[in-house]
Amino acid sequence: MLVVLTGGTGGAKLIQGFSREVDPAELTIICNTADDFVLHGLHISPDLDTIMYTLAGISDPVKGWGIQDDTFTVLHQLEKFGAEVWFKLGDRDIATHIVRTHLLRAGFKLSDVTERLRSKLGIKAKILPMSNDEVETRIETSEGEISFQEYFVKQRWQPEVKKVFYAGVAKSWSAPGVLEAICDAAKIVICPSNPVTSIGPILAIPGVRDALRRTTARVVGVSPMIGESAISGPAHNLMAAQGIDPSAHGAAKSYADFLDGFVIDRGDERLRGKIEALGIRVVATSVIMKSLDDKRRLAREVLALFEK
Amino acid sequence: MLVVLTGGTGGAKLIQGFSREVDPAELTIICNTADDFVLHGLHISPDLDTIMYTLAGISDPVKGWGIQDDTFTVLHQLEKFGAEVWFKLGDRDIATHIVRTHLLRAGFKLSDVTERLRSKLGIKAKILPMSNDEVETRIETSEGEISFQEYFVKQRWQPEVKKVFYAGVAKSWSAPGVLEAICDAAKIVICPSNPVTSIGPILAIPGVRDALRRTTARVVGVSPMIGESAISGPAHNLMAAQGIDPSAHGAAKSYADFLDGFVIDRGDERLRGKIEALGIRVVATSVIMKSLDDKRRLAREVLALFEK
Repeated sequence: MLVVLTGGTGGAKLIQGFSREVDPAELTIICNTADDFVLHGLHISPDLDTIMYTLAGISDPVKGWGIQDDTFTVLHQLEKFGAEVWFKLGDRDIATHIVRTHLLRAGFKLSDVTERLRSKLGIKAKILPMSNDEVETRIETSEGEISFQEYFVKQRWQPEVKKVFYAGVAKSWSAPGVLEAICDAAKIVICPSNPVTSIGPILAIPGVRDALRRTTARVVGVSPMIGESAISGPAHNLMAAQGIDPSAHGAAKSYADFLDGFVIDRGDERLRGKIEALGIRVVATSVIMKSLDDKRRLAREVLALFEK
Repeated sequence: MLVVLTGGTGGAKLIQGFSREVDPAELTIICNTADDFVLHGLHISPDLDTIMYTLAGISDPVKGWGIQDDTFTVLHQLEKFGAEVWFKLGDRDIATHIVRTHLLRAGFKLSDVTERLRSKLGIKAKILPMSNDEVETRIETSEGEISFQEYFVKQRWQPEVKKVFYAGVAKSWSAPGVLEAICDAAKIVICPSNPVTSIGPILAIPGVRDALRRTTARVVGVSPMIGESAISGPAHNLMAAQGIDPSAHGAAKSYADFLDGFVIDRGDERLRGKIEALGIRVVATSVIMKSLDDKRRLAREVLALFEK
């Protein structure tokens, strides 16, 4: 069983690669839900949705979020009613949120809801939210404390970040199957997702980090950074704010207590020694995934690292 | 001030006529909400919506419900997720329900929500839900007890009706402004809506029927029946089940304690004597409204009855 820890965009690309390189039934995805939020009364799980839409083959490859060729009729009408429309919800996407919100209000757990959506979308891989409890990434900025979506989407990561924390995480429980998946895995991959806001919350769920340290499975990560920049998104600012060196080295170091191998970009070859000094085997390749071929090639290279 | 009591379809047509024949700012609509229901976790108010969409000029004139040229992208996706789709929710229509559900959950009253939607849709007439409390028309059929929407839309009014009742009505309060509107009205119209499931619930709200008896305004009704058939919908079966003669006479009789005048179809001229014997002035004309001209003509004829 291949178990991956992931956020949205970057992780989804690599997972798409894995889904073509291994039997999807042998793939378990543990997904960040600390960016979940409620808008227009609808429960939105951006990372779960990105992963689901990607594996269902309906994600929008250009925008990197939402469903391909989706329309925005509901959103336009919501705007006429005076609703905030900075988060671009497509019509088909909204159906997901309506179903999720409805089932959550009816008493189902997020993991049950995710299982149902996954099944209806014909996805064979197992998708687990990191937790059924409310854990929320909060960003302390120079202009006050905001949610991750407000920071990332509404304010387009312009405010200066002072600190990041995961509200509610100390009291949270990992979702059913999360610890078991890590314990029973043959291979574990930390996706090239934001170490602070995508992987960070998963690791902060009580028991998860310890399980990663104790599992007999090898754990291999893929760098989300090239040089000092994230491949996409605001990882640089968020890592710096958390005192993490904003580089492949910083990412590897933040996982060093459980990481066996790390895939970095060829351009970061100069960091190899520094990362290997942490006791982590390093492979340098191209970590940019534009085409499906890129995704499959990187997935193969990651899988090869387990054989070494 | 012209005050009208109404359900959806038939009432909406006459109200559209009134909105062209009087200053809309002088028009107050008291609307049935006993057909409201929750589907996919969304609070749907079919009659309020039909009235709103009609007055906003966006209703679908062919279907008689929903918004003109609406699309059904969300519904198709909901169907893929296994949701029931017997109630045809369009995309723009769904935006209404999302906003309503969101505001109700945030603690706003249905009357506040309706006021906000009305204002955003640019409607000048005042629209009042009959109550902010949950009152639900329940149909006892040969196959068990069901809601009005299940009877009307899902089962296409096929089950045999044994009894109709309004769950929750005894404990309900009329919405703010309802009794005041009836008290202060210059003219009151009972729309050609279903006497059992559209007008009946409004009259059953404690205080409403008494206010109609006591107001100094004249009260004029328009028959929803021609012969023994409703102009549209299942009024015949529902009236018969409630022991009401399924005809213009039965409708007039069920309002006789507060009705001053009644407009019937020319084809029902033979019922004139029977209705006048109830102490109700009768005007016979055509009560079928197909074109906007029909609606305006009938509105004018109703208004003329107040002058007599």
